[in-house]
This record gives sequence, C-alpha cells and structure tokens, in this order.
Amino acid sequence: MPLPNPIGWLDGAGIRLLDQTLLPEREVYLELRSVEAVAEAIRTLRVRGAPLIGIAAAMGAALAADGDEDGALDRVRRAVQLLGATRPTAVNLHWALRRMEQRAQTVAQQGRALAPALRAEAQAIWDEDRAMCARIGQLGAALVPENTTVMTVCNAGSLATGGMGTALAPVYTLLEAGRAPKVIAPETRPLLQGSRLTAWELTRAGVECTVITDNMVASRLRLGGVGCVLVGADRIAANGDVANKIGTYPLALAARAHGVPFYVLAPTSTIDPATPDGAGIPIEERSADEVTGWRGARSAPEGVGAWNPAFDVTPAHLITAIVTDRGVLAPRDVARAID
Amino acid sequence: MPLPNPIGWLDGAGIRLLDQTLLPEREVYLELRSVEAVAEAIRTLRVRGAPLIGIAAAMGAALAADGDEDGALDRVRRAVQLLGATRPTAVNLHWALRRMEQRAQTVAQQGRALAPALRAEAQAIWDEDRAMCARIGQLGAALVPENTTVMTVCNAGSLATGGMGTALAPVYTLLEAGRAPKVIAPETRPLLQGSRLTAWELTRAGVECTVITDNMVASRLRLGGVGCVLVGADRIAANGDVANKIGTYPLALAARAHGVPFYVLAPTSTIDPATPDGAGIPIEERSADEVTGWRGARSAPEGVGAWNPAFDVTPAHLITAIVTDRGVLAPRDVARAID
Repeated sequence: MPLPNPIGWLDGAGIRLLDQTLLPEREVYLELRSVEAVAEAIRTLRVRGAPLIGIAAAMGAALAADGDEDGALDRVRRAVQLLGATRPTAVNLHWALRRMEQRAQTVAQQGRALAPALRAEAQAIWDEDRAMCARIGQLGAALVPENTTVMTVCNAGSLATGGMGTALAPVYTLLEAGRAPKVIAPETRPLLQGSRLTAWELTRAGVECTVITDNMVASRLRLGGVGCVLVGADRIAANGDVANKIGTYPLALAARAHGVPFYVLAPTSTIDPATPDGAGIPIEERSADEVTGWRGARSAPEGVGAWNPAFDVTPAHLITAIVTDRGVLAPRDVARAID
Repeated sequence: MPLPNPIGWLDGAGIRLLDQTLLPEREVYLELRSVEAVAEAIRTLRVRGAPLIGIAAAMGAALAADGDEDGALDRVRRAVQLLGATRPTAVNLHWALRRMEQRAQTVAQQGRALAPALRAEAQAIWDEDRAMCARIGQLGAALVPENTTVMTVCNAGSLATGGMGTALAPVYTLLEAGRAPKVIAPETRPLLQGSRLTAWELTRAGVECTVITDNMVASRLRLGGVGCVLVGADRIAANGDVANKIGTYPLALAARAHGVPFYVLAPTSTIDPATPDGAGIPIEERSADEVTGWRGARSAPEGVGAWNPAFDVTPAHLITAIVTDRGVLAPRDVARAID
C-alpha cells in the first residue's frame, strides 16, 4: 500500500517535509534546518493535520538541542514557545511539545546529552502515532459496513499523521484486507484539503474516491449508500464535543438527518480534559484572503469582508462514537478514558 | 439604488446580456442576435437565476419571430424547444416559454404580426417579474427583524431576476427605507455565485456583505445575530418542497438546528403543481470539471471522480414560510395559492 511519507529526518540536523500546499500538482519536499523554518511550515500549513503537526513540532524541538550543549535546554524551551504559538486549536501540538520539554528537563537534570535524547523522544512520538493509527484503523474497520461507501472531510489520512491516518485508517485497513470502501471526499474550502490531499493519497493508494463540493454533503447522504461518516479531530473536549476542520459540524447535522452513523477517529492525545466543552476550545481564524480567492485568483469583489474560522465544533450528541487507540468510546466517556 | 441591468433589448433584433461568468473582475455585456446564442448563454450560465432565465428565454423566443412572417410560428416553436432544453430544473423557464408559445399561436390565428406581439409578451414577462420582485421585497422586508444580519445562498438578487431580486428583494427594500441589514453570503461552490455575484451587487448597492465558505454556514448561525435566512427557488413542488441552488438544504438544516427562521422567496411562476414533491424534481447534474477545479486551475488530482448536482431539495418541514407575489404562504399551501 503506497502511502506517502509526509515527514522524515534529514541526515545531519534537519527535517524533510512534503509541502502539502503544492499538492496535488507538485510533490515537493522541503529541507528544514531550523526551528523557525519548522514553525513557519506549520503556520503556513505546509505540514498540517493535528497528529502530524505534533510530530513535526516535536522534531522541531529536537532540532533546537543540536549544537553546543551549553544553553541547549534554553534553546529547546524557546523552540517550544515558538512552535506552540503556531496553531491554537490542535491540542496534540501542545501535548507533544509539553512532552518534549519535560523530557528535556529530565535529561538535563541527569546531565546527559539533550540532542540524541530529544531526537529519540520525537521519534517515539512518531512511532507511537503510527501504532495509534494502526489501532484506530483496526477498531474503525469493524464499524464500516461491508461493500459500502464512506464519507470523510478535510484530510485525516497518511498526510495528516505519522502513519496511515485517523479517519482514513479504517479505509486503508480494509484495503489491506482486500475490501476497501469507496470514499466521498468533500473538497473542504477554503484550502481544499479534501480534493487536493485526500483525493490524492486515496487515488495513489488505489482507493476509489469521488470529490464533491462542501455544500453537496447533505444531498449525497440523502441519495443513500453511504454506510458511515469518518472524520478526524483537532481537539476533543471533556464532554465529547469535537473541534475539527470547518465543515465537520454541518456534515454531522446532515448525517443525523439521514440516519448515517458519524464516527470521530483520533488518538487519545487529542482529548483535552482541561476543556469542559466545545465552547471552551479556541478556534483559529485565518486570513480573509483564503476565503475571497484561491491561488491568486480573486473570487469576491475588492472591499468585501470575509470570515475564516479554520475549525468548527460538533456537539457530542451528534457523534455516534469516538474511535481512539484505547477503544471505541461513547462521547461522554472520553475524559474517563484518559484518566 | 444602483442595481445592475443584467438584461436588455438591443436596438434592432437582439438581446444585451451581462456575462455573469466574468464577474466580479469584469463587467462585460454580450450582444446576442440569435436564438442559438441565447440558448448557449443560458446553458453556460452567462445568464442565470430562475426568473432571469425565464425572461432571457422569452426574449430569445421573441427574437425567433423577427424576419419573414412566413414560417415565423415554426421558428418560434423550434426556439421554444431549443431554449427549453437548456436547463432542466428551473420551472420559470418552461412557464415563460409555454406562455410565449401560446401567445404566438393566438396571434398567428388572428393573422397578426408575430414579432411585435412576442416582443411585447417578453417585455410583459419582464415587467411582471420586476413588479413581483418589488412585491416580494415588501412582504419579505416585514419578516426581517430590525438591526439584524441575514444569510442567503447563491445569488437571488438583481442579477437573477428582472428586478430587485427575490431573496435579496427585502434587503433592497429595507435599504431604500434606510435600514438595510448586513448580509452573509456563502460563496456557493462550484461556481461561486455567492462571492462573485451576491457580494458584487450588494457591495455596489452599498450593503455590507461578508463572504464565507459554504462549510461555515452552520458555525456562523451558531455564533448568533442572524435574524433569518432568505433564499430563492428554482422550483417549488406542490407539497412545498423547494429545489434551489446546491447548499440550500444544508443551510436549512443548520437554520433549524439554531432556531433561525428560513424563508424561501420566489414568484408564483416557480410553483409547479404538477410535481407532487421534491423527489419528482429533476436535478441538473453538471460537468465534473466544475468541482475538480476553478478557472483552469485543478484542485483535485487527475483521474479522481466528482459529482456535481447544481441544485438540492429542501423539504417543506424545514421552511418557515414561502414568500411569493401572492402573499406569505405556509409551504403546504403553495399549490392552493396558484389555483
């Protein structure tokens, strides 16, 4: 199953990143050799997807430890600050950076070299994510009816994680078993991660994919034949409300209207017990330019306003179940699952 | 109130049409001198909007009567066939063409000249539409709360009708009274009539307009401050189900979820008593290319499939009221209203 490698270590000190803003036209790999370059790549969505952002940030924090051992802990702490300020909604980012910082403190207290220890810690975060994806894939695959079509949103596949994805993991798991479902990918404006990324990685893997515009979701579910909806998550509040890419909430409303099961698939690192409900999740608002045009071509007249929240919140009551690496959970049980 | 003139007669035989595919960048007027050219302009959405399609088709049918009086009735009948085959969903098109054909038969039976009579009939359809828009504007304006924001979809404004629009007519009516609401315009992929056309005509008229992508509709309604949703219609079935631009149905689902009144505004010529419910309305499916890219730039990888229904059906139970030139109707009462 030829899944892309959106991230990797460079020999010497650096990170190799697939520039996801250039897909599907061009498959370009960036060589990032500084924390600032990694932060910029996260901010500009060259690397995106909540789990992969966490991995990229962890690798970026590890980069900061390279070089002179004197001041390495300070450099790592500054890197954690810088990287943590790039995207406000995804909680894996903060989870991964906290883990890196704690590891750095422990290693420094022990008087051991930071650089190899932090590289190993970032690699562990990546390896664990790959394993979580595989586990989510197995658990999710059992929920997908045979010979069905599934619908997703945005991209929560191999381009969004360190492994086979979250929302798309059941698709790949079923593909390996010789019975991949067809996938409907809403394009996911404004940045088109559905048509650009999900359609690209599925087609590349040999999964049949149909792209629709975001406003066709409800009509497609009414048409029938969609066995379930599979989406990722950027943050899950203690009550089971889920922040995910803008468009997830209307997809959940449409799924409920047509009786289609709606599953959220995410690693437990996405669960944020400190946030009681969806109203407490900070929603990143991005530049109006993303809404008023696409790749330089304006679609709205000059002077018109735009609103551009990157995420929305799906209330727990619209979610059939949350599939995590620790099992398939009722939304109300997520906080307990990570106690 | 500087509203655009999307259609007009040319001196001599012909029609002047604003090419709506080039907005908002360029305001280009086409000079169409044949029925074929008018049909092509409808098919390619250079002229669009259910009421304006009806007017353009009527004017196109009138063009067919120009020239030799011998064979004029046959030419008109062929024009009605050609023009009627351009778009399957909008019912005004067929209503206007049937009216033109009946007028042509009557005039021919009376032995009178067809060309001036059909030109007058098309002009009457246009004038009546302008009056209907004004009436819908008055009735609709009374439903819009003071100092509120309204949300629409696609473009059902002056660019879609022979007057001040249907969904946007209350906005213009309130603007003339000095209390225009702010308008939220979902961009309406794939052809972006919301960001290209609605934002253009509202900004031009001095109404504050904010563009969002289609998947932001539910989040924006949750945010609050939206007093009502105002949408047009391409066809209204006898039971009150409404076919309108793709994206209308999810907007109705979101409005219901957040307790926001959802109004459909359309002339009675949009009501089709011969179609018992929404399932019987033919939904035009357009080219996949519209979904997989925009203005020549591909957004999906080569080889991926796409589905492109131009309209969806909103069930009557999600509609607060249908505002027509004959009054504000409960959806279940529409068929009775045109008896």
